[in-house]
Amino acid sequence: MTMVDVSGKRDVLRAAVAKGRIQLKPATIHLIKEQKIAKGDVFSLSRVAGILSAKKTSDIIPLCHPLPLSAVDVSLRIVDESHIEVNAEVKALAKTGVEMEALVAVSTALLTIWDMTKQYEKDPEGQYPTTLIDGIQVTRKVKRE
Amino acid sequence: MTMVDVSGKRDVLRAAVAKGRIQLKPATIHLIKEQKIAKGDVFSLSRVAGILSAKKTSDIIPLCHPLPLSAVDVSLRIVDESHIEVNAEVKALAKTGVEMEALVAVSTALLTIWDMTKQYEKDPEGQYPTTLIDGIQVTRKVKRE
Amino acid sequence: MTMVDVSGKRDVLRAAVAKGRIQLKPATIHLIKEQKIAKGDVFSLSRVAGILSAKKTSDIIPLCHPLPLSAVDVSLRIVDESHIEVNAEVKALAKTGVEMEALVAVSTALLTIWDMTKQYEKDPEGQYPTTLIDGIQVTRKVKRE
Amino acid sequence: MTMVDVSGKRDVLRAAVAKGRIQLKPATIHLIKEQKIAKGDVFSLSRVAGILSAKKTSDIIPLCHPLPLSAVDVSLRIVDESHIEVNAEVKALAKTGVEMEALVAVSTALLTIWDMTKQYEKDPEGQYPTTLIDGIQVTRKVKRE
Amino acid sequence: MTMVDVSGKRDVLRAAVAKGRIQLKPATIHLIKEQKIAKGDVFSLSRVAGILSAKKTSDIIPLCHPLPLSAVDVSLRIVDESHIEVNAEVKALAKTGVEMEALVAVSTALLTIWDMTKQYEKDPEGQYPTTLIDGIQVTRKVKRE
Amino acid sequence: MTMVDVSGKRDVLRAAVAKGRIQLKPATIHLIKEQKIAKGDVFSLSRVAGILSAKKTSDIIPLCHPLPLSAVDVSLRIVDESHIEVNAEVKALAKTGVEMEALVAVSTALLTIWDMTKQYEKDPEGQYPTTLIDGIQVTRKVKRE
Repeated sequence: MTMVDVSGKRDVLRAAVAKGRIQLKPATIHLIKEQKIAKGDVFSLSRVAGILSAKKTSDIIPLCHPLPLSAVDVSLRIVDESHIEVNAEVKALAKTGVEMEALVAVSTALLTIWDMTKQYEKDPEGQYPTTLIDGIQVTRKVKRE
Repeated sequence: MTMVDVSGKRDVLRAAVAKGRIQLKPATIHLIKEQKIAKGDVFSLSRVAGILSAKKTSDIIPLCHPLPLSAVDVSLRIVDESHIEVNAEVKALAKTGVEMEALVAVSTALLTIWDMTKQYEKDPEGQYPTTLIDGIQVTRKVKRE
Repeated sequence: MTMVDVSGKRDVLRAAVAKGRIQLKPATIHLIKEQKIAKGDVFSLSRVAGILSAKKTSDIIPLCHPLPLSAVDVSLRIVDESHIEVNAEVKALAKTGVEMEALVAVSTALLTIWDMTKQYEKDPEGQYPTTLIDGIQVTRKVKRE
Repeated sequence: MTMVDVSGKRDVLRAAVAKGRIQLKPATIHLIKEQKIAKGDVFSLSRVAGILSAKKTSDIIPLCHPLPLSAVDVSLRIVDESHIEVNAEVKALAKTGVEMEALVAVSTALLTIWDMTKQYEKDPEGQYPTTLIDGIQVTRKVKRE
Repeated sequence: MTMVDVSGKRDVLRAAVAKGRIQLKPATIHLIKEQKIAKGDVFSLSRVAGILSAKKTSDIIPLCHPLPLSAVDVSLRIVDESHIEVNAEVKALAKTGVEMEALVAVSTALLTIWDMTKQYEKDPEGQYPTTLIDGIQVTRKVKRE
Repeated sequence: MTMVDVSGKRDVLRAAVAKGRIQLKPATIHLIKEQKIAKGDVFSLSRVAGILSAKKTSDIIPLCHPLPLSAVDVSLRIVDESHIEVNAEVKALAKTGVEMEALVAVSTALLTIWDMTKQYEKDPEGQYPTTLIDGIQVTRKVKRE
């Protein structure tokens, strides 16, 4: 096991976009739209959680190199009555790609949505029959020489 | 926005199990089985990454309470020629549930698999046509009074 | 130097409230009211930064004990045309008080306001003639036996 | 909300100086001078807390970029019988300024002084009638092309 | 691999003492005694580094449980003209022992001494012919039922 | 006390190798060889703990600069029936050397071995008569202009 030696690579501008989505009950999506979630503004909080986590990537994913991120943008949109999609774009002038940073941002934003809507998603037994995160993937990776 | 006040709640033993899976190319799954991934042992590393991240949950998910986890177990299994499933179980004697900790462990383990298999999953343009994380859900939550 | 030995103390419910304020240009306060700050929603972001930092207190203040916070609440209000006040309340069932946690939350929320309004506060030479944080104090400490 | 995209900016040497002060009881200031604070050397500990926190800035202030700090210096001086002033200077070859890093260092050093002198500042009811942090500002920002 | 399940264990007061030492050049030890190390007070800084690291143990050692430390004390003494010994005592009301926390504190304090005396220990080729850390062990573990 | 100002230094490729060893009971070494340690694969886990800690160096050692590590490699080998040796190599294009990063990696890997073999090393009184970490030193430092 090793953190790959990238000492010989050049710093070039790298960008990566990742996305993913969470399935919630229509009633929960409705509450989010109406800004009535008791824990606060789901969109603001999930975006900031995603941004902060992107900066922690090399602490969370063991073999990732620490990178000087120059941009992190996380956006959310309600795609239909039971799904929210998260998109994250990360950039850095670095020796390795930033797709892991974008994926970490997406995952954390999705998990933050889950945490903020827990009380509306649980059934009487405290289980989550509807809540589901899926479709986490890298949409686009760019290396600008 | 607020971190819910749980001061009045009693400490009871809480457990949660979460799962999720990652889709990889059959050739990559084959390399994992043969222990030929250049970055090292995918199973060991993903499990430890999941365990470490569960302990960081209150630092990653903004409104989560810091909890004294008493057990974290992360397991992986190859379910078919193109999927690996991760399961995580977390326990704590605490005032709130531990499903977020289990979900963070699952997500981090899955992202670590992605990071370790990147070089085999990328196509000639550096994109990831196959790699996909989905099915992240809470399988079971238990509160033992 | 030592982290005080509190092994013999009992866990009792402790609460602390702290406050502080930041002076900004009236034009900046106006932009905040109109939700026109380019970096995003100042109130949401400062509150979440305050909450997250309260949980990091024992990592930031060297001799603080790690405490299982059961509640953190951070609120902001515009007090006049050039000042925003931040209040933070923290609770824990713990062996020591939580005033440092409340103070860390207030300071971090105030610094986050600074960071988000930098571009409007700087003069042509890049200096900050107006911006000023003051009045950071503990308003109330409670120990409920 | 977004972490500003600085990908197109050049790395130049940046420096920032910030300051702030804490008001304590004259009796507490006297104990500090006499090196009789039970928790240890207030000056050493506050300086190291300030330095360590400057390096954590991008983890504490959500939209700050991670920067490769090349110098952090924190100094304290007793300005009169009831005030201690903290000054912090930070430098980095970076795409953005380092004033937030200097401000975080100052705030953390001041909070550490508070933490170390708590037992002398509290009144019989456990409140802090005297202790107050104020005057936190950026003294000077420099960009050397 | 697993973080051992301690859910069924009782919280009892646990203490552990660890020690270790570092070998330096006599000239360096002399500078420390004279408080002439350019980087600052070696004893203060090493002690605070040890205390802070003890609180990070569950983040550094993958399978350690997060524990609510109730006391951490780190002390240093010059044992002869070329050795400094570090002792650390840690206590917690917890389900598992605290020897790892004491060992982490000792190791970090020793490494901080190294870092602060680097410039005096290096030979003209930049190598460290003398500097050596050894004797890291657990002196005593106590469980008070 | 100060974090040395390296603003004027040039970024050059720097590498450092450090080593250290742990003494265990022959019976414990035997169990490691047979892969029968209950907590999991000692070698994998110690290596990943070492790599992760190297990236945290500037957070653990107070006056260390944050460095963009380009390679971290940690290896373990059983040297005789009662000793395991850990070697760590770290590289970075940086303004200061990386020997502290290599030393932190070695120390953490050794402590992780201790943590994983605790149950086999303790005597009936819960003490560690055999376990000992020593020989931590910098083997080689290189600066490639």
